[in-house]
Order: sequence, then C-alpha cells, then structure tokens
Amino acid sequence: MPSAAIGIDLGGTNLKVAVVTREGLISAQRTCPVDAVRGPSLVIADMVAAIDELLAENSMKRADLVGVGLGAPGPMDLRAGRIVQAANLPGWIDVPLRDELAGALGLPVIFDNDGNAAAYGEFWVGAGRGAADMVMLTLGTGVGAGVIIDGRVLHGHFDNAAELGHMIVVPNGLPCSCGQRGCLEQYASAGNVARRARGAVEAGESSSLAGLIHTGETIEAEHVAEHAWGGDSLARRIWDEACLYLAIACLNLQHAYNPAKVVLGGGMSQAGDFLLDEVRGHLEQQKWSLHDDLPEVTLATLGVDAGVIGAAGLAWQRPEAA
Amino acid sequence: MPSAAIGIDLGGTNLKVAVVTREGLISAQRTCPVDAVRGPSLVIADMVAAIDELLAENSMKRADLVGVGLGAPGPMDLRAGRIVQAANLPGWIDVPLRDELAGALGLPVIFDNDGNAAAYGEFWVGAGRGAADMVMLTLGTGVGAGVIIDGRVLHGHFDNAAELGHMIVVPNGLPCSCGQRGCLEQYASAGNVARRARGAVEAGESSSLAGLIHTGETIEAEHVAEHAWGGDSLARRIWDEACLYLAIACLNLQHAYNPAKVVLGGGMSQAGDFLLDEVRGHLEQQKWSLHDDLPEVTLATLGVDAGVIGAAGLAWQRPEAA
Repeated sequence: MPSAAIGIDLGGTNLKVAVVTREGLISAQRTCPVDAVRGPSLVIADMVAAIDELLAENSMKRADLVGVGLGAPGPMDLRAGRIVQAANLPGWIDVPLRDELAGALGLPVIFDNDGNAAAYGEFWVGAGRGAADMVMLTLGTGVGAGVIIDGRVLHGHFDNAAELGHMIVVPNGLPCSCGQRGCLEQYASAGNVARRARGAVEAGESSSLAGLIHTGETIEAEHVAEHAWGGDSLARRIWDEACLYLAIACLNLQHAYNPAKVVLGGGMSQAGDFLLDEVRGHLEQQKWSLHDDLPEVTLATLGVDAGVIGAAGLAWQRPEAA
Repeated sequence: MPSAAIGIDLGGTNLKVAVVTREGLISAQRTCPVDAVRGPSLVIADMVAAIDELLAENSMKRADLVGVGLGAPGPMDLRAGRIVQAANLPGWIDVPLRDELAGALGLPVIFDNDGNAAAYGEFWVGAGRGAADMVMLTLGTGVGAGVIIDGRVLHGHFDNAAELGHMIVVPNGLPCSCGQRGCLEQYASAGNVARRARGAVEAGESSSLAGLIHTGETIEAEHVAEHAWGGDSLARRIWDEACLYLAIACLNLQHAYNPAKVVLGGGMSQAGDFLLDEVRGHLEQQKWSLHDDLPEVTLATLGVDAGVIGAAGLAWQRPEAA
C-alpha cells in the first residue's frame, strides 16, 4: 500500500519537489535552483537526487510511492509526455521529460501543465474543495490557469486548454508577447500591473508611487494595491482596470464552463479582500440577469504549494492508484 | 432491438418532431405550431400525437423506440428535467417537461438545451463528425451554442454551460437584453446584424440598403451580406465587425476549450464562404504565435435539422441504449 506521492513543480528559476500524503499534506519538500541551460539530463538527475534524499530523510523507499506528478511550463505534448518549447526553459526543445524521469526512477510519472497542476491542487485540498467544476487563475508574472470539469483536468484536443491568460478582453488592446492584443494577462497579472504603473510613473504621471523610485525601490503589484487602497489616483486606475477585466473574464468563464467557483491565486491575490471586493463589485454591475449562475469568486488557499500538491494529486488520481 | 429514436426540437414558434435512425438519418418528421400560452399540457399532448402519427405512418410502435430526446430553450434545470423560465415560451414557469412527456409516452426522455442538442447533432453526423472536442455557434435571432468535450455535452455546475452568445467581446459595448453589455450576440447574430443595419439606414446613413426600405422590404442579415459583398460601405462595416468579433470569440474558445473545430450555423452561415473567409482572415491577423492550436472554423451541415437530429442522438447515446 503506497503511503505517498511525489509532486514536482518545474519552473524557469526553481525546481520544487515534495512528498505528499494521500490526504494532500506535504510531509517533506525541497527547492533547488534550475539552471535550464545545463540541459534536461542534469535537471532530471537533480529531480531524482532530490526525491531520493527526501525519501531517505523520511525512512521511505521508492517502492512506498504511488507515483510522481510533474507540473511543467507549456506548451507541451501531453500524450507523448514532452515539453515542446518553454519560454522560461531556454534550449529545451521537444524534451521527452516524462519518460526519461520515469525511466530513471522506475516509477510511473504523470505529466501536466503547471497551471493545470495548481488548479488540481486547489480543487483537491484547497479553495476549490468540493467544487467538481472549477477554474483557477494564477495572477503572477503572467496569468496561469487550469480548469477542472467533473473532477478532472480539462485538456482539449490540442492538450492546451485553459490558456485563460490569453483570453482577449480588450479588442485591439495592449500587445501581448503571445502575438495577440488585449489578452487578460496584459491587464490583470501582477507582472503587468507593476509594469504599467512603472511606465506611467516614468512617463511623468503624478502618483504617490513615484516616492518608491526616489528611494531606489522597484514598483511591484503589491505597491500598486497599497497605493490604490491609499487613494492614489494612478494606482487606483490601474488596480480598478485589473479588477474590471478580471470580472469580465469571470463572466466569460461563467458562460463558457458554468463552474461552481473561480479561484484567484498568485501575486495579485496577496491583496486579499481588496482584490476580491473590487472584482465582486464589478461582477455585480456587469453580470447578466437571466439566471442565477454566477460562480463564487474566491481566493486560493495553498499559496506557492498549489503546484507540487496538485502534481502529487494527479499521481494519486491515476486509476491504478485507487 | 430498437430501430429508431425520436428527436424533438421545441421552439417558441414551432414544435418539430422527427424519427431518427441509429445512423442519424431522419426517416420521417413533422412540424406543428406551438401556441405556448395554451400551456404545457396541450403542447405535450401535441408531442405525443405527433409521435404516434409518425410511428403509425411508418408501421412502427412505441416499443420500437430507444427513447426520446427533447431539446428546449433554456435556462433549465437539467437534473430535474424542468424548464425554469424561457423567454419565448411565455407563462412556462418551472415546468417538469421531461417527466410529464416520459409519463405520457412510457418511454425514457432525455432533456437538454436546444443549443446543446444542435451541437450534438453536428458532432454526431454533421460538420463536427470525428471531432470529439467541438464548439457550435448558431448565429440566428440570437447566438445559441453548445460544447462537446470528449464526445459528451458540457453542462457545468449550474447546467448552463456554453451560453457563448453572452461572452463579452466588447467591454462596455452594446447593451444586451440579458443585462450585460458587449455580448457576442449583439454583434454577430443574424438578428442583430439586421437590426444594426436597419437602425443605421433609418438614422439616415447613406447605403445601398436604403433601396430595400423604399420597396417595402425589411432589411435582413442576408441583405447585409449581399450588400457588403457588393461593396456598400455601411453593410461592409457591420459585416466586418460581426466577423471580427466572431474571430475574437473563436480565439477565446480556442484558449478555453482547445477544441478541434468551431462549427458556425444559423442564418449568418447562409453567407457561406463570405462568412468563413472573413472570420478566418481576422483569425490569421489576431491569433497567437505560441502554439499551433487554432481550431478549424467551419460551416454547419445539418441546417435547421441539427436540433432534432442531435436530440435523437442524445437518446441513442444513453448508456442503456448501447
């Protein structure tokens, strides 16, 4: 009877590995830097070493594991278990990550997009618990996302469903690095909220945020939230626009998937009720009146652990693990 | 061994009943007017009479049927089999349509939204054949829709998924009867394309469409398409805007569901390649460059029969019917 699963969250900067119980609790974890340019083989060796060290420290063997869940940045070929090309893993082109890790460990490896893994984590033991139809938006550097339908991760025909940061919310809006214009993540990610505030201050707009620059600090999304709360009109405008477009995105998610919940995580969610109240306020103003099917919009509860917990959850969810 | 299913498409104006084979072919059908104010009982009696007449004409008995599929206007309570309230069935509040029809017939009745039934029809034997992940948009009076995921109709937590005509494509755009602003159906339904053209002509904008009014005709979407094709600048502007917002909707559907196909039906699709080429042109201009996962956008093939065929298909799809 297996007693744990391994969850791995592979990012461009850090590799996070955790031992996760059947109840979704982290019993041990470690984080190591990823130096992607060293190439996949050495990063896979780091994963194996981290797993073995965690097992040894907890008096466990590989045979005690139900399997390994691995969340990685997309786009990916899920069926083949390959990273196709990831913006923040330079040089990793068409890497058969799933099978190489499985071969090195002699264990089954479940492979998914990092946004999907985080969504599954929040569904399994976080803010989405009990909501078999749920959407998660991770408002970080960009906007990551995952969709749970009837308790399972939605993948779609091309394995690339739930790229919700690239829903277009403003026709002919701000250009996005993806090639589109007006993507949600241009307005509502922590990275872009900060970037827009910096740009406006540097362009000479009057704002209490300018004081940060004078003291050598970098304006971040948390500063925009603070100064908006404090009444600064520039910060207020950027924050309000983020919340308005998040509300419009939530309405589009409502009509697309009809989920019970939309869970907001990532850096922007650090603002807590100030984010939630503003988004809910716009929802009340903008929503339809035909049916009472607005999803509950709520804050994520697993923080930066959602990815490893969710990845491990996907390993626990395998039919063979039942 | 059952030899047919009944498909029913209940609209505000007409009730359409068809005998549909296991292969998705209509072997007999009839259409009768719906006078909704007479109340549900008499309309249900009409359904039963139409079914029995069709069976008699084809030397069949109720026992030869695998079941009945019924598509009806939403919003509805699918689990309870009830119409909650339908804009075009005045006075029908909380009607237990599924169980009353099943009781009257002594047959299983599968109940679904009319947009979902049409989508299932196109998936089963129409333009979506072979595409287990597919979206259909019916561009008629409004915009009806249905989503197929892994070969099954998507319903969501509140049974009201795929209300895609109410995706917001223009923040603070045209007011919609649903209470939102900027809904897709305000720009891309046949009804609203015609209405916008009429409004502009009546307001005195110069257009070749004005000639229709002088001869006593009503401007319809097909006229807007014709005159846009002919180079009239007003018609061209309205048609182009419809196609632009359809393209933006398709991109949002791509990122939401990652379907293999988006199927366009309803009155607007009568324009054929003129619709398809314009939408595809905007898609090429607006699409992202991160991944080659644009759905194929294509025209529906079942026309006004999609609803009855799809409803019957849902009856054939029941596990008990296998």
